[in-house]
Amino acid sequence: MSDYWNKRTAAISPYVPGEQPRDRKFIKLNTNENPYPPSPKVAAAIQQALSSRKDANAPPDGELLRLYPDPVCTEFREAVASAYGVKPAQVFPGNGSDEVLAFAFGAFFESGGLANENADSAILFPDITYSFYPVYAQLWDIPYRAIPVTDGFAINPDDYVAPCGGVILANPNAPTGRALSPSPLLQLARTLEQNRRILIVDEAYTAFGAESLVPYITDHPNLLTVHTLSKSASLAGLRLGFAIGSEELIEGLFRVRDSFNSYTLDTLAIAGGTAAVLDKPYYKEVNQKVIATRERAVESLTAMGFDVIPSKANFLFISGGIASKVQPCISGPALFHTLRERGILVRHFNKPRIADYVRVSIGNAEDMDVFLSACKAIIKK
Amino acid sequence: MSDYWNKRTAAISPYVPGEQPRDRKFIKLNTNENPYPPSPKVAAAIQQALSSRKDANAPPDGELLRLYPDPVCTEFREAVASAYGVKPAQVFPGNGSDEVLAFAFGAFFESGGLANENADSAILFPDITYSFYPVYAQLWDIPYRAIPVTDGFAINPDDYVAPCGGVILANPNAPTGRALSPSPLLQLARTLEQNRRILIVDEAYTAFGAESLVPYITDHPNLLTVHTLSKSASLAGLRLGFAIGSEELIEGLFRVRDSFNSYTLDTLAIAGGTAAVLDKPYYKEVNQKVIATRERAVESLTAMGFDVIPSKANFLFISGGIASKVQPCISGPALFHTLRERGILVRHFNKPRIADYVRVSIGNAEDMDVFLSACKAIIKK
Repeated sequence: MSDYWNKRTAAISPYVPGEQPRDRKFIKLNTNENPYPPSPKVAAAIQQALSSRKDANAPPDGELLRLYPDPVCTEFREAVASAYGVKPAQVFPGNGSDEVLAFAFGAFFESGGLANENADSAILFPDITYSFYPVYAQLWDIPYRAIPVTDGFAINPDDYVAPCGGVILANPNAPTGRALSPSPLLQLARTLEQNRRILIVDEAYTAFGAESLVPYITDHPNLLTVHTLSKSASLAGLRLGFAIGSEELIEGLFRVRDSFNSYTLDTLAIAGGTAAVLDKPYYKEVNQKVIATRERAVESLTAMGFDVIPSKANFLFISGGIASKVQPCISGPALFHTLRERGILVRHFNKPRIADYVRVSIGNAEDMDVFLSACKAIIKK
Repeated sequence: MSDYWNKRTAAISPYVPGEQPRDRKFIKLNTNENPYPPSPKVAAAIQQALSSRKDANAPPDGELLRLYPDPVCTEFREAVASAYGVKPAQVFPGNGSDEVLAFAFGAFFESGGLANENADSAILFPDITYSFYPVYAQLWDIPYRAIPVTDGFAINPDDYVAPCGGVILANPNAPTGRALSPSPLLQLARTLEQNRRILIVDEAYTAFGAESLVPYITDHPNLLTVHTLSKSASLAGLRLGFAIGSEELIEGLFRVRDSFNSYTLDTLAIAGGTAAVLDKPYYKEVNQKVIATRERAVESLTAMGFDVIPSKANFLFISGGIASKVQPCISGPALFHTLRERGILVRHFNKPRIADYVRVSIGNAEDMDVFLSACKAIIKK
């Protein structure tokens, strides 16, 4: 605490990302990174942006970096537009989808009255979801109400048909991995449209088996889909995300961004991100491998007696606690710590309803074999 | 305008950066970029971060990009700390100094009551300064009062000794280039400290001849200095900035950042920025060249009769209007447009008090010769 922090800074509870260990070598299944490298075209494009010379053998000189990047990220937005079948004006670029979400909360949800969760202006999201949503709401002083998911962690879209300031849902949801099909989401969008409220659908994990709502944005001016290159494009280290929605929503995001930072994507990220978005065949293959590994892990963990929430994401939400058939059962913290001792990092959220679960990112086949063997050994003890 | 924008989005007037032309080739003196390339060590460091292999001849594979970057940017902060003689905990890293400033406004200045510029909680900055400051205030709903600079665009620090919510000054100031020495600024910091208000000093251009306040941050817990690698480190395209201040201020910035986006610097920017900060000798030489070119341009423009504001930055603020000895005088817009027709981009701000001036970034010697010849030709017509 400091005399110089304002009320916001004193009051907020910042988001805590999964650890990025710098010392010990772990099998890292804690932050939903893709186990496969990015498309080789990404490094090639960055390499090219790093060189002002046409001669491929000349060492990169970084000369282009002295100039500001294109503030509207034309090249990247055109690539996204062509890959998703939309117009560049329907694409907003950001420094990771977290930044896109931060701008979206600041642009579309009304500030004022954080304390009043019962107000008709409160925004709605599930009680079990990406834990950054309530943090964004705090940052912008937006009242919100958390809507309970079912016992099996399912979202019931009908629960969101209520006077509210807007809705945000992750599909598939995090950290559960459960997905919804388009039709109930589009029905919800239509209902919200009647009151001029927006529906944000966070599609960070959609590429791993859920259905994207991008094809429907033209019919739904109040539907904003948010995407990241961190998971499905293996580019967590390059910080790229984007939103796709109606031109008026995209313009709103630019207005807030341009009141915050005019250049959020650097020259190299724009080049690398553009190459990634255009290399669909590479990522289709990579993500099919992730999906196949996930399905194998589901089978194996289920056979061991774990409660495994049905996942369409690149992670599994599992419990060896009382909801499972594991005997004797093992608590979430115990499972987390025992795995950690064995050099395997997963994520545990110390929160009501989910404290008995851990979230396990899908690694490559070899790492998942080590993880599954560890699980077997742990529950046999 | 859109039904889906909230009040903030509808009300704000976003910052408009200088144009980054993508078609025609200009002599680009409009966005204060450094005319010289970054240190060769920058591209080498990025190249290394782009490669997971130790073999320098293997093509970069980008494999490390699948992992999230270090969220606290340890390497970069240690480099800044060592270069500036401070502790890493006194360094906050950001995606350009614009982002650092956006977080600083959000962390330290109190929100509420934008309309009331006369409130004792209004923050203070000069009427002629970086035009992003009022935009940040709008974004966070912070009341502010613009304090007039003198007729010669000088800042009088005594004008800021008043009940207020805090002060932000650029030193040297933009777009004028005028600098203050440390002692009146430190006196102002002390006065503000008595009321637990902070003084932000934006040192974006300090490396071009002004004196930094970094050596004084230990004695002034309410003093935050803000820095960018865009100008003095020739890295506008890599998006890097940082703040240096007391640990409690830095912690406040992290709290707001971590409620917005946990990873604002990508892996390549961290690597390149670290290399840049550590290569002091290279940049000392580069920036001495910029200073020498500036002094030559001042002499030449003064001889032509232009009003040239004394500058310690990498730009000049000049007028051929009624404040000058140019005969017949030429308005700011006319000077801007005539230079543009000749393929030279400078920056014109269509604002009260400064509409007769243009801001000219210091280019390399050749580009400045072309610019100076153009000025001569224009005023002789």
